[in-house]
Amino acid sequence: MIAEIITVGTEIIIGSILNTNSKYLSNKLIEMGINPYYHTSVDDNEERLKDVLKIALKRADLIITTGGLGPTQDDMTKEVVSKVLGLELELDTGVEKEIAEKFKKLHRHMTENNRKQAYKPKNSLFIKNDNGTAPGILINTKSNKIILLPGPPSELIPMFEKYVVNHLSDDNNIIVRSINTIGIGESALEEELRSLDIYEENFEIATFAKDGTVEIKIIARGSNLNIIEKKLYEKINKIKDKLGNYIYGYDNKHISEILIELLKEKKLKLSLCESCTGGLISSIITKVPGASAVFDRCIVTYSNEAKIQELGVNPKTLAESGAVSEQTAYEMASGLLNKSNSDIVLSITGIAGPDGGTGEKPVGLVYMCVMNKDKHKIIKDIFSGNRTSIQNRAALRAMFEIKEFV
Amino acid sequence: MIAEIITVGTEIIIGSILNTNSKYLSNKLIEMGINPYYHTSVDDNEERLKDVLKIALKRADLIITTGGLGPTQDDMTKEVVSKVLGLELELDTGVEKEIAEKFKKLHRHMTENNRKQAYKPKNSLFIKNDNGTAPGILINTKSNKIILLPGPPSELIPMFEKYVVNHLSDDNNIIVRSINTIGIGESALEEELRSLDIYEENFEIATFAKDGTVEIKIIARGSNLNIIEKKLYEKINKIKDKLGNYIYGYDNKHISEILIELLKEKKLKLSLCESCTGGLISSIITKVPGASAVFDRCIVTYSNEAKIQELGVNPKTLAESGAVSEQTAYEMASGLLNKSNSDIVLSITGIAGPDGGTGEKPVGLVYMCVMNKDKHKIIKDIFSGNRTSIQNRAALRAMFEIKEFV
Repeated sequence: MIAEIITVGTEIIIGSILNTNSKYLSNKLIEMGINPYYHTSVDDNEERLKDVLKIALKRADLIITTGGLGPTQDDMTKEVVSKVLGLELELDTGVEKEIAEKFKKLHRHMTENNRKQAYKPKNSLFIKNDNGTAPGILINTKSNKIILLPGPPSELIPMFEKYVVNHLSDDNNIIVRSINTIGIGESALEEELRSLDIYEENFEIATFAKDGTVEIKIIARGSNLNIIEKKLYEKINKIKDKLGNYIYGYDNKHISEILIELLKEKKLKLSLCESCTGGLISSIITKVPGASAVFDRCIVTYSNEAKIQELGVNPKTLAESGAVSEQTAYEMASGLLNKSNSDIVLSITGIAGPDGGTGEKPVGLVYMCVMNKDKHKIIKDIFSGNRTSIQNRAALRAMFEIKEFV
Repeated sequence: MIAEIITVGTEIIIGSILNTNSKYLSNKLIEMGINPYYHTSVDDNEERLKDVLKIALKRADLIITTGGLGPTQDDMTKEVVSKVLGLELELDTGVEKEIAEKFKKLHRHMTENNRKQAYKPKNSLFIKNDNGTAPGILINTKSNKIILLPGPPSELIPMFEKYVVNHLSDDNNIIVRSINTIGIGESALEEELRSLDIYEENFEIATFAKDGTVEIKIIARGSNLNIIEKKLYEKINKIKDKLGNYIYGYDNKHISEILIELLKEKKLKLSLCESCTGGLISSIITKVPGASAVFDRCIVTYSNEAKIQELGVNPKTLAESGAVSEQTAYEMASGLLNKSNSDIVLSITGIAGPDGGTGEKPVGLVYMCVMNKDKHKIIKDIFSGNRTSIQNRAALRAMFEIKEFV
């Protein structure tokens, strides 16, 4: 099945917001075996939207539009789609009543504009919007399926997952699993995968690299759910056996969440001291709700003086080995372990660039030390990319190393 | 002038990466008075790309494609565009030589695929790519201008700004200025703007809200550069007079960069202590190259214990006023000022949510204290949105408050 995603909205066309809806919908459609070959964006203009719809009706079986379903003058997707398809708009008195009641509850006046939302094209279905006022619409014609969804991702995503998916599934079963890895490059990973006996028809295996992590995505299709589940399980086990050291999680769960769950489960308290990442690891971890249960503190010692004062790093070490060295990483970690009563600590020091690199210590060089009261581990790596990329890669790697150490 | 932006690439179509190029290019084109009414994405498929190009040639004067200029089999934008326009590909021997020399320098073998990049459609121009191997191409036909650019933003953006802009400018002059504000809502700001005598033809004034900041964008057009510059200057001054308290910068420079420049200029050292933002402010500041010249340290005291141990907050204060209080913010700041020898410190404590809010202290409540050895200022605010949004808004506000305090 060929699909076209049409995002309607001047804010996309003038570059004021990013088109995240097309990415989200494509991802979902691909997982269901539908090919979203065309993405089109157009502004809130009747004539141009008409033209875009006419082209899409010819080249796609499924059309999903997002945006333009609200109550204002600019919102015209429903009206224009109806015109192009030659369908009249009908008032749904049930929905009209619902809207009226909603306004009554809020003690607000219901305008003619609001009533507009109770109209839908003849023979179409409303799709419920649990997180906003504009419902979606599903239209089946002889040759096309057309689905109109609102623009805000916070409304569109739950609608798609709760209601739209059911209208798109066919007899075939699809299971999608992701295996998330870190510490191995995409090419090397692909080579390892190719050496495994996991490839066969109806099992699509692809890799996607981002910030030093690589996602292995397996899309399994088949009519017998039991068989594909069993086969998928076998394949994942083969990958685990070979690449287990690099796997940090499954199904794109963020490593910060995995780490926090693990620390909660083991009842361990974590503290950090960061230099080159400047608080990034701490800020990623504290983005997760409930991090306070396992996270105690982070000391960002950006200057040498702070390393000495806050963590008791020996000035001699800084003078002889430098701030970016195994010994400094070790002393940072043990200083922090001594003064906090955390169970596990990680220190990180490196050269994020763009300046400060030398032949011996290039930009991207990072030392970490993860430590508890019984043991410690030093990690040395050279991360590639610009300053932000080096900081991001080092932060992800740090969380992975803490998880492995626990 | 009507433009269409065509992004070519299977990775966009399957939803594996976000289409940031369309947003970037739209933004730039709008600033130049060109209307990018259509955005289209299509996968690496010759037939579909042909169809998309034919449609674009009819409805747009200017077509900009991104992606598909590399050396591999999948890369076919140049070849397909040439076919659709009926233009032969010609070898540019100068470029061929340049590529050969590049490979010689790297001691790598130059393949036939690499030689492909030295071909261009008859009568077209190469656009230099300073950050990659695939050059761009500019084609002028009787009715269309077609510009082919590579996909990676790190190559496309400098090419657009350095070379493409010159091929797109016309007789009309355009000046775009942005005024960046914080601490005032978009509606309130718009009302203030409307009360000023700044609106007139050829001066477009729009506002864009993001994470608690609002950008005022003025796009000025006219044939006489001196006149529009003078008028623009007057308008900006009127806005400054009325709204100066909320303005933190111009032309979308990040507040962290503005802050670091200011601290460098005044030769001041900054330290932070963060609770609810968990190191976010520190990580934003240390994303800026050269931050080490003015940034000393950050203590992320996530637990009460850390607040007491690291910053000397009085346990009685925490018990009586709570961790989220004016008094705790004050004691955090003075503790840090005493132990570091920074010139200026900021503390922040609040409830980022989703849990932990009460009637008296709701989710979003944040206290900050900015302090030097002579004075201090307490800031209390309630930020809206989810956990991430509250953290982001609070972090931006904190940097603004430091800047105002200096």
